[in-house]
Amino acid sequence: MPLSRTANTFPPPVMEARRWLDGVDHPASRPLLNVSQAAPVDPPPLNMREAMARMVVDDAETHLYGPVLGLPALRAEVAQNWSAAYKGSIAPAQVAITSGCNQAFAATIATLCTEGDEVIIPVPYYFNHRMWLDMSGVKTVALMTNAAMLPEAPAAEKLITARTRAIALVSPNNPCGVEYPAETLRAFMDLARKHKIALIVDETYRDFDSRSGAPHDLFMDPDWGDTLVHLYSFSKAYRLTGHRVGAVIANQTRLAEIEKFLDTVAICPNQLGQRAALWGMQNLQDWLAGERHEILDRRAAITGNFPKLAAQGWDLLGVGAYFAYARHPFGQPSDQLAPQLVRDAGVLLLPGTMFMPADIPGSETQFRIAFANIDRSGIETLFERLSDLPY
Amino acid sequence: MPLSRTANTFPPPVMEARRWLDGVDHPASRPLLNVSQAAPVDPPPLNMREAMARMVVDDAETHLYGPVLGLPALRAEVAQNWSAAYKGSIAPAQVAITSGCNQAFAATIATLCTEGDEVIIPVPYYFNHRMWLDMSGVKTVALMTNAAMLPEAPAAEKLITARTRAIALVSPNNPCGVEYPAETLRAFMDLARKHKIALIVDETYRDFDSRSGAPHDLFMDPDWGDTLVHLYSFSKAYRLTGHRVGAVIANQTRLAEIEKFLDTVAICPNQLGQRAALWGMQNLQDWLAGERHEILDRRAAITGNFPKLAAQGWDLLGVGAYFAYARHPFGQPSDQLAPQLVRDAGVLLLPGTMFMPADIPGSETQFRIAFANIDRSGIETLFERLSDLPY
Repeated sequence: MPLSRTANTFPPPVMEARRWLDGVDHPASRPLLNVSQAAPVDPPPLNMREAMARMVVDDAETHLYGPVLGLPALRAEVAQNWSAAYKGSIAPAQVAITSGCNQAFAATIATLCTEGDEVIIPVPYYFNHRMWLDMSGVKTVALMTNAAMLPEAPAAEKLITARTRAIALVSPNNPCGVEYPAETLRAFMDLARKHKIALIVDETYRDFDSRSGAPHDLFMDPDWGDTLVHLYSFSKAYRLTGHRVGAVIANQTRLAEIEKFLDTVAICPNQLGQRAALWGMQNLQDWLAGERHEILDRRAAITGNFPKLAAQGWDLLGVGAYFAYARHPFGQPSDQLAPQLVRDAGVLLLPGTMFMPADIPGSETQFRIAFANIDRSGIETLFERLSDLPY
Repeated sequence: MPLSRTANTFPPPVMEARRWLDGVDHPASRPLLNVSQAAPVDPPPLNMREAMARMVVDDAETHLYGPVLGLPALRAEVAQNWSAAYKGSIAPAQVAITSGCNQAFAATIATLCTEGDEVIIPVPYYFNHRMWLDMSGVKTVALMTNAAMLPEAPAAEKLITARTRAIALVSPNNPCGVEYPAETLRAFMDLARKHKIALIVDETYRDFDSRSGAPHDLFMDPDWGDTLVHLYSFSKAYRLTGHRVGAVIANQTRLAEIEKFLDTVAICPNQLGQRAALWGMQNLQDWLAGERHEILDRRAAITGNFPKLAAQGWDLLGVGAYFAYARHPFGQPSDQLAPQLVRDAGVLLLPGTMFMPADIPGSETQFRIAFANIDRSGIETLFERLSDLPY
């Protein structure tokens, strides 16, 4: 038994990676390319910032406590928008706002699990999911993905035990970028329902999915609430990472449990961020369509330029939304190479070892490239640097 | 074993109390007096709101992720200000910023405890502390307070077992209002150090302490970091409840563990709230002194007007900072009376039953009055209504 909940997990990978930058100078001719974090580097557009400034000055409620489960108008807007987008029926009372999507995951797990329970997640996984399971006393059961980096329901079924409480998927995926096909998600929904466990689907990157229309039909099921928990983040779509606004959609009984967790860990989501998210949903849909187009263009630049790296022995394992996931050809493990790349190439990216348990092979040959922050020419530069390494 | 972490605790008391308002009309001649929550009802002063609006428009960083442990300038300001106020030595690296003080407590417990551990807290307690211990699989060990509502170290020592990891105190106290004497806190520090457990001191209401100078000498101890964890909230001082900004001061080893928790539950505190807190510390000290004076005047109004209630059989058990804690003379338990008071007197307050385990006697005769939001005449009106009840 570990000495404390935090002693049972590892330090935050993103903060560890930031420390690799310490003491490294980047010449003006070769500025740092930071593809380590999935985060916009620009603020929201000016009209949104000006709207937020007016709220700060004029709306007293922006500065005061609000309901634990979030701003009623935002919950209603999400319910209406999601019901239309997914062609399903989602009520405002089935939507809760959280202080970011990580908190939505943490709150959900707290309603599902207790000491010694198990949750199945595909590998590579999003490391904060693993960290929260560790800190909750919940065993992470790693589900191997196939050659297309997709999880398969029949393989997951073999991992289900009496202690399994949920399967958690991320689509479009972090770290692999892959968009899970609707039929994959449907198969997992059926599997979870059959075994009376929850299916958590984290759609943080849904606004940058390359497919048109709804990415799955799970909300069309009138009984979705018995199995599905959907997670979302406003951070990427509206460049609100610094304001911490996410959402969880689940049945009302679960949200009453989530309310206990959120009250104790946050009291309420911050009020300005919630108002900004609502303003964005109501005013920035055209702008967001342009953002998506830009991200899809960067994705095309990844695919289009990859042959340069492939010629050096690299493999592109997955690409989509904010991420590319690649296999490198070098003899050294990725966690040793990553800090070297900062010094030798002016590139900061995260090694595959951060996305997998140590006992699963493969991670040492893998890197995640969070490409959303660099444009087409930045991607070309990145690939030039990576194809010219002295290893 | 409960089915989940959240199943092991109760619903948020403040949200339960809000529901007592449903369907109750308050005539214009008798508007609702809401003394249920410790929260400002007015926004920050205009100059601060205008400064925040400028940050929102002009400072891109306000909208982006920041370090997990908080804005470096705010950590440095807290370190400097606290070192001066407590005549001690606190480094910026020993300060972390959290999304509110509840989160500071939750993060601290995650670094100290695991399943089956124990934490000692005086009763009546702050209910969110109890809820977090429940959800963490940690046993709450209730320490009875004396007639002055103060905890005593010798009584606490008798409760220490091999599983005890911390004693958590709140001063000025929520819900009792009492300001713990410096020698009480010193005795608990010595006790905790002797038994190699942590002493958590939540000073959320420190800016409204009636005493001048430092409320304790714990930070004067050069080795404070081996035992003490100090918690703070910017919410009350600068009316920032809606922005969620708190702090934890602890040794660097513990903060490295806290970083794991905060990264996973929040990623970072929201950036505007942190900048507002910093601006407040640098620009609102005179204003804050006026706020404190006003709260102390309201406290005096509680004490000065209490004889009216005492004549009806009430006892004032504690008063200070935002709270009065009183014993009522009625035959009914406080949790039945509280919803009745909404209808019969237009008063919303919280029953003592929310602040104690059910198996400890006394709570059914007690109420917490969070008086900070009502002025002198509001306090007179409150007491008139309470002294004129038909029970």
